[in-house]
Amino acid sequence: MSLALGEIAVQFGCEIHGDPDVTVDCVATLAEAGPGSVSFLSNPVYRSQLAATRASAVIIAPDDAADCPTNCLVTGNPYVVYAQVAQLLYPAALPRAGRHPSAVVGADCDIGNGTEIAAGAVLGDRVSVGERCYIGPNCVIGDDVVIGSDSRLFASVSVYHGVAMGRRVRVHSGAVIGADGFGNAADQDGWIKVPQVGSVNIGDDVEIGANTCVDRGAIGDTRLGNDVKLDNQVQIGHNVIIGDHTAMAGQCGIAGSATIGARCLIGGGVAVNGHIEIVDNVSIMGRGNVTKSITTPGVYASVFGVEEAGKWRKIAARVKRLDAMAGRLRALENRLESLRGSDDDT
Amino acid sequence: MSLALGEIAVQFGCEIHGDPDVTVDCVATLAEAGPGSVSFLSNPVYRSQLAATRASAVIIAPDDAADCPTNCLVTGNPYVVYAQVAQLLYPAALPRAGRHPSAVVGADCDIGNGTEIAAGAVLGDRVSVGERCYIGPNCVIGDDVVIGSDSRLFASVSVYHGVAMGRRVRVHSGAVIGADGFGNAADQDGWIKVPQVGSVNIGDDVEIGANTCVDRGAIGDTRLGNDVKLDNQVQIGHNVIIGDHTAMAGQCGIAGSATIGARCLIGGGVAVNGHIEIVDNVSIMGRGNVTKSITTPGVYASVFGVEEAGKWRKIAARVKRLDAMAGRLRALENRLESLRGSDDDT
Amino acid sequence: MSLALGEIAVQFGCEIHGDPDVTVDCVATLAEAGPGSVSFLSNPVYRSQLAATRASAVIIAPDDAADCPTNCLVTGNPYVVYAQVAQLLYPAALPRAGRHPSAVVGADCDIGNGTEIAAGAVLGDRVSVGERCYIGPNCVIGDDVVIGSDSRLFASVSVYHGVAMGRRVRVHSGAVIGADGFGNAADQDGWIKVPQVGSVNIGDDVEIGANTCVDRGAIGDTRLGNDVKLDNQVQIGHNVIIGDHTAMAGQCGIAGSATIGARCLIGGGVAVNGHIEIVDNVSIMGRGNVTKSITTPGVYASVFGVEEAGKWRKIAARVKRLDAMAGRLRALENRLESLRGSDDDT
Repeated sequence: MSLALGEIAVQFGCEIHGDPDVTVDCVATLAEAGPGSVSFLSNPVYRSQLAATRASAVIIAPDDAADCPTNCLVTGNPYVVYAQVAQLLYPAALPRAGRHPSAVVGADCDIGNGTEIAAGAVLGDRVSVGERCYIGPNCVIGDDVVIGSDSRLFASVSVYHGVAMGRRVRVHSGAVIGADGFGNAADQDGWIKVPQVGSVNIGDDVEIGANTCVDRGAIGDTRLGNDVKLDNQVQIGHNVIIGDHTAMAGQCGIAGSATIGARCLIGGGVAVNGHIEIVDNVSIMGRGNVTKSITTPGVYASVFGVEEAGKWRKIAARVKRLDAMAGRLRALENRLESLRGSDDDT
Repeated sequence: MSLALGEIAVQFGCEIHGDPDVTVDCVATLAEAGPGSVSFLSNPVYRSQLAATRASAVIIAPDDAADCPTNCLVTGNPYVVYAQVAQLLYPAALPRAGRHPSAVVGADCDIGNGTEIAAGAVLGDRVSVGERCYIGPNCVIGDDVVIGSDSRLFASVSVYHGVAMGRRVRVHSGAVIGADGFGNAADQDGWIKVPQVGSVNIGDDVEIGANTCVDRGAIGDTRLGNDVKLDNQVQIGHNVIIGDHTAMAGQCGIAGSATIGARCLIGGGVAVNGHIEIVDNVSIMGRGNVTKSITTPGVYASVFGVEEAGKWRKIAARVKRLDAMAGRLRALENRLESLRGSDDDT
Repeated sequence: MSLALGEIAVQFGCEIHGDPDVTVDCVATLAEAGPGSVSFLSNPVYRSQLAATRASAVIIAPDDAADCPTNCLVTGNPYVVYAQVAQLLYPAALPRAGRHPSAVVGADCDIGNGTEIAAGAVLGDRVSVGERCYIGPNCVIGDDVVIGSDSRLFASVSVYHGVAMGRRVRVHSGAVIGADGFGNAADQDGWIKVPQVGSVNIGDDVEIGANTCVDRGAIGDTRLGNDVKLDNQVQIGHNVIIGDHTAMAGQCGIAGSATIGARCLIGGGVAVNGHIEIVDNVSIMGRGNVTKSITTPGVYASVFGVEEAGKWRKIAARVKRLDAMAGRLRALENRLESLRGSDDDT
């Protein structure tokens, strides 16, 4: 696959600085690019690599274009145009329609045209899979699952019974969709299992990372809106609701019945308490702990960066004695007040 | 399945307010309930939904019963009774005795009556599985594993050689039981692998969440007591011991050789250091860091909730300068002391 | 397998205190050892168990040897010698050369002598597996993967296309190597997938824990050096580079394009931000948050240990009001200054 800069410019609305007939056939970082490759500048961290790049073309914002030593594709959003060009240069593998002889498919399943059921996959009864889907090797799909067209489940994905997912959904290896939520009632003699009778409902264009878990609802469904993006090792508790276009980096944990709005950006390792609500357009910085509802859009954080361990131990000890420090401050204020009082008396 | 309120009341010792002949056939939340459904009120967060509920019956505590607009099943522990009623209305799927032709079972295995070995499951040699168990699709069970009766392993569970688990154990998809603990000895040229020659011993009535890992012991076994409940993505290090009835929410990490008592409640994402001990009846709030032994029952915490990011940055900067603040406080105290001294001198 | 203390001493350069003809055939902890077992003392936490041990021999440092009630193997690094002795007493299982009939192997694969492909494993096309490897049950290996000799993939490992790993690599169950990095470009209408066209390159002697994920690069490869050790549930983002001999305990999360040096020790649950760099020989204590580059070797931390919850709530409230406290301190300083000024005036 090879693209002329002129084609790219027309298709994605870029301005060309340089030769529109130059072609590119691969992507590369600014630092490692060679002839024939297209690179991009989006994160300012990498601006210093621009001057020496050997790329045939760079996708770049207007403000940076003057500093570019090679052909430019100038656009307001270089990362988006880069993503689109890369999709053209590296088209996704198409499913090889049919089912591998080692796959096991239950009764009354409905498998769409062009769909591939790979080796070792196991589908339950009454499973519906749309057209042009890929069900990867050793996936296990429970009874009554519905998977929309053009979806792709990589190897070894587990989907419990009754889960419904939309079109163009991508689920990475080891993800588990629809396992029981964590419901246990404390009886005097121990725990009583609370049956998790809801399911999981996943919108269109959702991507779910490797080893991520989305639990089924206790009553009613856990819901991921359209275009939700979950990175690896995320844990979504039962009856969580996540709004459209919200993205969550790796290792987030969202406790049961939390509701997260649309277009939120949740950093890696963020924890959200159960039964709380986050409105639309909220960003949480990595490792933040959301312990109560957030009602105002904005950026939120609660992380301390590391310090040299000896210094940190002193800081932590000080923090734990803040009550004492506050007491000393109050005592000083009182003493000073009385001193001024006596001073005034003189 | 349909139950009359009178039957429920007799079986679970509830008092009925309303008509004992009313029947219910499903569960629902207060907000979404319709005729024929039974709901419950346990978490006060949802009390506001009580007045408008359309449930046929609500399982409820005595103090709330007067406010219930429909039939009540009154009990001191509504969540427990709800769980029991839901278990009756949604009976667990029974295993379909036998082994799927695509399952692979090693030599000298002992598979109990009524047990199902599902498609693609692979059992090693000398595996013992009790009666009425379910070994889900694509599970892999190592040599010499023992699984007690009425246990259920969902799809794609991995159990390493020699692991022993009790009766009525449930293990969710992607869980890994008995992988090597993290043991490496630092030699001058690099790491020397420390063989992990212990195993894992799991009691009765344990539930293990999706993608949770329980490592085998370095020497001797990692042990989960009876009725231990682990949510998803929990990491249990080698030689950890967890007492009966302890429950742990998602993403906890328990480092090697930690001992956790009975009836502990460990919130999501809690970290417990290695080689320490937590006594019985300890609760740790979500994301708490247990860095030393806890010798007194109680509730423990160490989390800061998020703030608006700009505000948080100021707080974090102040925390890191607490030493300076303490120094200024000390200087003030000294100055005030000398001032008072000179004041006294006059 | 049985070893005489004399043999051990010669092979690993220990001094013997006691009878070189005594033999041992198993390892045990100091507390649980019986006749025939060899134990060791390395962690001072367990020194109190030394006096009563019933081990036939203890591997021990010179300073502790005098207190040992039984035969000693005295060495400067007891843990390393213990590891080596345990490797002799518990030799790793050898692969059973050949492929199970239920395994599926694609076209043009190159499988080395002595390699075992276990039941249910699925290999893509053009996969190269070295000699004496073990590809466990239900593993899935993508197209064009290269696995070096003497490597061992436990059950249900997923390796995406194009991943390359060295010799003597061990990968535990549920690990996912080479899934897409988390790359999404924000367009006005939603997310545009950024194709992840790099791969993963893993050195020799690497061990990867259960359910750990190592993402493929966005452009160029994610790289783990030689002798890197990753515990369970670790998340390695795209284009991360990890230097030789670095070890990482469970549940660490390393964001995309971070670079971590050689011989680093990363505690459990540590988070490292994207696009930053950590030099060689850095230790991060458990749960530390590395939010910016670390340029100096040393030990770093950022964790607060739990306190009783009521006490913690007060501490957290004080922390969040530190600005107010700083203001009061400043006011006191000013007042005192003016007081002293007026004092001076008198």
